[in-house]
Amino acid sequence: MISQAAAHDLRAVLENVWYLDEPEDIATYSYDGFLPEFTPDAVLVPENVEQIASIMKIANEYKFNIIPRGAGTNICGSSVAREGGVIMAFHRMNKILEIDRESMCAVVQPGVVNGDLQKELAKYNLMYPPDPASMYVSTIGGNVSLNAGGPRGVKYGVTRDYLLGLEVVLPSGEIIKTGGKTLKNVSGYDLTRLLCGSEGTLGIFTEITLRLVPLPPAKTTLQAAYGDLDDAATTVTAILAAGMVPTTLELMDRTVLDVISDYGGAQFNPDTEALLLIEVDGDEDLVDAQGERIEALCREKGAMAVDRAQTPEEAEKLWQARRTAFGAVASMRPNCIVEDATVPVKRLPEIIRKVVQLTQKYDLQIAVLAHAGDGNLHPLIMTDLRDKEEMGRVDQMLEELCEAAISMGGTLSGEHGIGIAKARFMGMEFSETALDLMRGIKRVFDPNNILNPGSFL
Amino acid sequence: MISQAAAHDLRAVLENVWYLDEPEDIATYSYDGFLPEFTPDAVLVPENVEQIASIMKIANEYKFNIIPRGAGTNICGSSVAREGGVIMAFHRMNKILEIDRESMCAVVQPGVVNGDLQKELAKYNLMYPPDPASMYVSTIGGNVSLNAGGPRGVKYGVTRDYLLGLEVVLPSGEIIKTGGKTLKNVSGYDLTRLLCGSEGTLGIFTEITLRLVPLPPAKTTLQAAYGDLDDAATTVTAILAAGMVPTTLELMDRTVLDVISDYGGAQFNPDTEALLLIEVDGDEDLVDAQGERIEALCREKGAMAVDRAQTPEEAEKLWQARRTAFGAVASMRPNCIVEDATVPVKRLPEIIRKVVQLTQKYDLQIAVLAHAGDGNLHPLIMTDLRDKEEMGRVDQMLEELCEAAISMGGTLSGEHGIGIAKARFMGMEFSETALDLMRGIKRVFDPNNILNPGSFL
Repeated sequence: MISQAAAHDLRAVLENVWYLDEPEDIATYSYDGFLPEFTPDAVLVPENVEQIASIMKIANEYKFNIIPRGAGTNICGSSVAREGGVIMAFHRMNKILEIDRESMCAVVQPGVVNGDLQKELAKYNLMYPPDPASMYVSTIGGNVSLNAGGPRGVKYGVTRDYLLGLEVVLPSGEIIKTGGKTLKNVSGYDLTRLLCGSEGTLGIFTEITLRLVPLPPAKTTLQAAYGDLDDAATTVTAILAAGMVPTTLELMDRTVLDVISDYGGAQFNPDTEALLLIEVDGDEDLVDAQGERIEALCREKGAMAVDRAQTPEEAEKLWQARRTAFGAVASMRPNCIVEDATVPVKRLPEIIRKVVQLTQKYDLQIAVLAHAGDGNLHPLIMTDLRDKEEMGRVDQMLEELCEAAISMGGTLSGEHGIGIAKARFMGMEFSETALDLMRGIKRVFDPNNILNPGSFL
Repeated sequence: MISQAAAHDLRAVLENVWYLDEPEDIATYSYDGFLPEFTPDAVLVPENVEQIASIMKIANEYKFNIIPRGAGTNICGSSVAREGGVIMAFHRMNKILEIDRESMCAVVQPGVVNGDLQKELAKYNLMYPPDPASMYVSTIGGNVSLNAGGPRGVKYGVTRDYLLGLEVVLPSGEIIKTGGKTLKNVSGYDLTRLLCGSEGTLGIFTEITLRLVPLPPAKTTLQAAYGDLDDAATTVTAILAAGMVPTTLELMDRTVLDVISDYGGAQFNPDTEALLLIEVDGDEDLVDAQGERIEALCREKGAMAVDRAQTPEEAEKLWQARRTAFGAVASMRPNCIVEDATVPVKRLPEIIRKVVQLTQKYDLQIAVLAHAGDGNLHPLIMTDLRDKEEMGRVDQMLEELCEAAISMGGTLSGEHGIGIAKARFMGMEFSETALDLMRGIKRVFDPNNILNPGSFL
């Protein structure tokens, strides 16, 4: 517990009312999108960079932990008070400070919700490409902290590709600026990208400068149904090999489709073993031409049926299955774990076969979603945390899957983060020497280890 | 000077013949694209990662400096033995190890020349977008070390946007791997991008994994001549504001054009105050449509004439002026300094006016090239290193220009690096706190400070 003296100082900084420690407040902040719960001592809701700097100085003086947290949608447990301390929340710092149409960038506070930014940018015919599934809830601060990806990653990349600059409060309470509003910037070490994906362990973002792109004038959506999962997976690499880069290339397996049907969602041809959902954006002519080529390619690779949306309403209908998928799967059992192992695209069929094999080996219920176009697999493991025996099998399955992904040249996490969920696997991907470098970097930024300790390191 | 014992051990690792210390060898490696000369003790030419690991261990034992160097084309002095030591050269490690068509990536050794990689990739209909002006000479290792940009940056970004993974020999001689072959990877701190642009101060790259894109099937090239420099600059922001992202958006001012004419290159309408060179790539239809829209926009913004290439030969002719520019300008006086201050795109007209003003204020000869589409200015300062008085004025002009760029939200260096050229200006862009973080990171990687010391920190 933090001391009364520390609490007193924090209350003074936060005008009393923004220091929350009632049971119902701290309960709300005791968990995030991952499973375990850790009750924080309090929740701080600062309004500006000066308050945050003051809070960090108090934390250093009294030696308690600060855990920065956006909307808490992360599913790796990177925003809970695992080793005690207080949560810092950002819903009072939710302003879009600037949209610079000519320089194609925006400056925002960390608490701005991704989807709100998108809506505002659309008025200027601009887009911020990263689109995590949580985008209508999750904040830009959290997105940067986790280096969030999303379905559009195939064509547009991830958060780090659109992060230009940061204002950061260091664990010491000092404030620095990194990067700026320019696409090109090679001054000094790239602190901006080092901070991106650092899971709240190196600094607190107080201003974020993002690169924008023109809003694509047109898009087309296709859905292809396959009688064979392998055919769907090989279609993905065939599309890329043909020189086309769709905006999204999503895959759903038979289990997902069955669950959606049972859930009362869309119904599918019973021979369907996998579905691809493909979207292309850009100029109208290009979109039409690529849509046709992709449709032909899907059929050539064995698709039983290809639907192509002619209107936005039809497109929305095709997306319906994908959007329902997670909710439907998550409703099947008390808990659902979303895996995130990622492999080079050409190994996609192989890693999917591995998931199928592990599902049988460990007698589990697993549905497979994938951002297939960038090799980012999302097996959905339906389970029950209270069932120790089953959870043992889940853990073994996760370990074996991560080992398989690494052995294929992949990574533990494509876009969900390490947090406390995968900290134990870090040794698979990194040598002790590489981990020591990371620990050394953490010490440089946070010598007292007060900022989100006990996360992935 | 390194000791005889150290030299003996190095010779043993390098089979004697790849330890070079004849006067003509070390003279060749005593300078790079920047001006000052520092004679190294020797030049090491390793063949593989094991030799490099052994060399680093020897360097730690005998405490001498290692300066990694690609083709030495950098113009910030980041590959010279400023504080003594030996140069490590990579021309024996110049193999393309893998081109993975399906996963859209390549694995190369550091000594592979960028242009050679491009030629090979074209056979697979693939492209590696970063295209520094030095690309037919400079190496991928050097490009990663400097986070090289290039004209295509407007549309495609820079080296860091295409760097997926590294094998690195640390200053300790230990070998680590970072990243991999996946576009998405959020495991641990982003060591890959921290190493990108680190100017040879944190580690030696021995294998580099790069993301590739499909080779665009078509492109079109336009040249627009303006009677007013401001009109040219505002056309740049107007094109971007119209939602178009050309591949390149290059600007040349009157001085550049005069020099090209005097040099015996192309002749220009004497009323021309600025030239824009614009290229669009992509699918054929798109390229045609955007070419037309851009041509109309140029005229609307005051262009006196717009030429559009109908054939590759005509396109090459339009590029001729841009390609001749640097050589022509560099031939005017004994030395030519290429500045690299970069600003948010919308400040481009303002920073160009600043250059014009400083040219008069300090009575210098300066021609302006710019990767205008990303605000990356390249004023070419024609001067004579032997003229101390003039060099004093050059230094003052550089300082004032950098201050102006920073005050506009820009950066000291868009793509050329800091090295020894701009080390003295780092305090303009970074607070002492931020610089301390960088120094701390350097100590974590290189506690004995033996890898390219005396560079930008």
